[in-house]
Amino acid sequence: MVKEEWRFKENNEVHAAASLTMRNTLELIMGNIDVTQTGKPMIHLGHGDPSVYPCFRTSPVVEDALVEAIRSANFNCYATGAGINPARRAIAEYLSRDIPYTLKTDDVLLTVGAEHAIHVLLTVLAYPGANILFPKPNYPTYEARARFSSLEVRHFDLLPDKGWEVDLDGVKRLADEKTVAIVLINPGNPSGSVFTYEHMRKIAETARELGILVIADEVYAHQVFGEKPFIPMGVFGAIAPVVTIGTLSKRWIVPGWRFGWIAITDPVGVLHKTGIVSSLKSCLVISAEPPTVIQGAIPRILKNTPESFFVNINKLLKEAADMFYERLKEIPLLACPHKPEGSMFVLVKLNLSGFYDVVDDTDFCMKLAKEESMILLPGDAVGLKNWLRVSFAAEPKVLEDAIGRLKAFCLRHTKHY
Amino acid sequence: MVKEEWRFKENNEVHAAASLTMRNTLELIMGNIDVTQTGKPMIHLGHGDPSVYPCFRTSPVVEDALVEAIRSANFNCYATGAGINPARRAIAEYLSRDIPYTLKTDDVLLTVGAEHAIHVLLTVLAYPGANILFPKPNYPTYEARARFSSLEVRHFDLLPDKGWEVDLDGVKRLADEKTVAIVLINPGNPSGSVFTYEHMRKIAETARELGILVIADEVYAHQVFGEKPFIPMGVFGAIAPVVTIGTLSKRWIVPGWRFGWIAITDPVGVLHKTGIVSSLKSCLVISAEPPTVIQGAIPRILKNTPESFFVNINKLLKEAADMFYERLKEIPLLACPHKPEGSMFVLVKLNLSGFYDVVDDTDFCMKLAKEESMILLPGDAVGLKNWLRVSFAAEPKVLEDAIGRLKAFCLRHTKHY
Repeated sequence: MVKEEWRFKENNEVHAAASLTMRNTLELIMGNIDVTQTGKPMIHLGHGDPSVYPCFRTSPVVEDALVEAIRSANFNCYATGAGINPARRAIAEYLSRDIPYTLKTDDVLLTVGAEHAIHVLLTVLAYPGANILFPKPNYPTYEARARFSSLEVRHFDLLPDKGWEVDLDGVKRLADEKTVAIVLINPGNPSGSVFTYEHMRKIAETARELGILVIADEVYAHQVFGEKPFIPMGVFGAIAPVVTIGTLSKRWIVPGWRFGWIAITDPVGVLHKTGIVSSLKSCLVISAEPPTVIQGAIPRILKNTPESFFVNINKLLKEAADMFYERLKEIPLLACPHKPEGSMFVLVKLNLSGFYDVVDDTDFCMKLAKEESMILLPGDAVGLKNWLRVSFAAEPKVLEDAIGRLKAFCLRHTKHY
Repeated sequence: MVKEEWRFKENNEVHAAASLTMRNTLELIMGNIDVTQTGKPMIHLGHGDPSVYPCFRTSPVVEDALVEAIRSANFNCYATGAGINPARRAIAEYLSRDIPYTLKTDDVLLTVGAEHAIHVLLTVLAYPGANILFPKPNYPTYEARARFSSLEVRHFDLLPDKGWEVDLDGVKRLADEKTVAIVLINPGNPSGSVFTYEHMRKIAETARELGILVIADEVYAHQVFGEKPFIPMGVFGAIAPVVTIGTLSKRWIVPGWRFGWIAITDPVGVLHKTGIVSSLKSCLVISAEPPTVIQGAIPRILKNTPESFFVNINKLLKEAADMFYERLKEIPLLACPHKPEGSMFVLVKLNLSGFYDVVDDTDFCMKLAKEESMILLPGDAVGLKNWLRVSFAAEPKVLEDAIGRLKAFCLRHTKHY
């Protein structure tokens, strides 16, 4: 049976969008792993998912809350597009603690993880000719979704020598009358940096000046362990309207639960007046919401997770970040310009000229996977060619092992004169 | 602050798509309900969700399987785009029981309910100028998604006088070289009908002749209680490639869990050769998968749910369908041309000329909500103006009450000469 007989055909647009995702890159690298060859167990520092390590197991409160939701049999039914009100209200109250405004139930829309939130936001903001400002480096899902929503993407730099702060002059140069929004990820993915209050206020004022929406990706909210506190962008909602993306995934260490939200901090009411809020709700009506049974667990999870759980997770992340940052100094041809202060990631620069047979960051990661059964993300996937994004969210002995493998790999491939 | 100051704007495309959804229609009708006015509890026969009734509670096996998945802490991590293999394999084995082919793990892709499956399929099939064949009446999510994917929609009739069979001549008249697929929903939503083996074979042969994909929506698979058995469209996969949409939602009565799948029955390999399978996988890579914790429960659910559970649910549905069909005869101005044989729905025709103050089906549903606190779906929402879609999946005493309210309403609004 030959192709020509059939009317349907391959969709190269979806392939193009998929090729931009982190998932796609990681699956390619994974393909080079053969533990029977290396005799070494796989170490995956390619994504922010420490849920596999016992020390990072979620709180019993989280597991109990979902079990209770199941046993009640009250959450097997359909929910409305924006989600059930008790869950929305609980998130509104949770977020209101840290901003000078009181979010209402209606300011929170539930999504199937951050991925769905990004999808909904970019879908709503897209119109013919519209463009959006993304950071460089960036979380790749934004690139894939923008490409698929035919939103033109313009990249502003995050400055490594300034602790990955936003190049605000660059932002002003890039924006025009068709610019709809700016995306910020704080705590930083992939940068591992944390923005100061002062810098965030300047970002908000710049957005106000340009008349654009601030999309604040706070998937790593509160996961900070340096000098700087975590400040939600919503604090500046009166300067420019802020749409915040949040999830259970990272702070509660349940990324696979795929539970997220879009929160609107807009005390001036700009997003209601301009129809953005109603557009977001319409977009949610035409896509599946997170399982009601998980929504049903949210009030208990947000109310009952003990502070000690979060303190311990941040302690583990700090110890891992410090250890990795210090030990990295032993490794030739790798450099880390900025010590991580938040999230689960650190960006490492490759000194390519020192390798005799590594052509670029992707080649580095492919060979590392093959020889050491270890996965890192090539910087290319986040817009930084010849860097590496490393997740240090692993248990200490695994991280020790990882450092050892990385060092052995670099020594083995160092050019000798 | 005035609108003109901001660069972002309302998205009327998403509004237009959302306006086509059932959810949207039901929320409008819900807005007319005021139980304090009527003193009557709300009766919702507007959607296929009996999970609220104790007699329709899901099997303990289903609840236990999810609890075990949570307690294992093995499913808090990210899954791959197509889902975890044990869940995919379990579904492949489950579906293979009823078709002459053995589906492989790779033939099953997991989705966030049927809604996500529809989204993925129509996104992949869309290209500029492409059209797709939908039944009339249809499940509205298809219309919303096609509109949003800019797929041209062409409707073929389901024939009430022939037990809602497909008008195959109509299908042939509608199709051209830009037609990519035909959608069939069996057991029927909204029709409540069940296709015969012979009719399905003819549909597959027609698809083969036209060179189009068969999208078989089998969300109500096995939920039949008339003369005709349920036959999966995959049985005819060698005649034309079949993509089947399935879920846990209806057979296991957990619609809110939002767990679904796309299964590929393509013994000839057409969908691999034409790149449709790889396109579907790419589309899944750029959207969120169902929560891993639910995926982790699937093998146990499919293996351990006792046959007696399904037998009992079908018995309840049969009794409800029979009772509603019989009692409807008492009610003036309503007629049911075809006794339901499957799914949870029956289509009821309005004799508008007999009402003195009901202008159409939507008006009927709005007034019924206001006066009787009862929700039905206007046929207009499924493409059948001046019909009603009634879900009879409710506990007997609620259905009794519903019949009483419907009768009182119709008598009250009957024209008197």
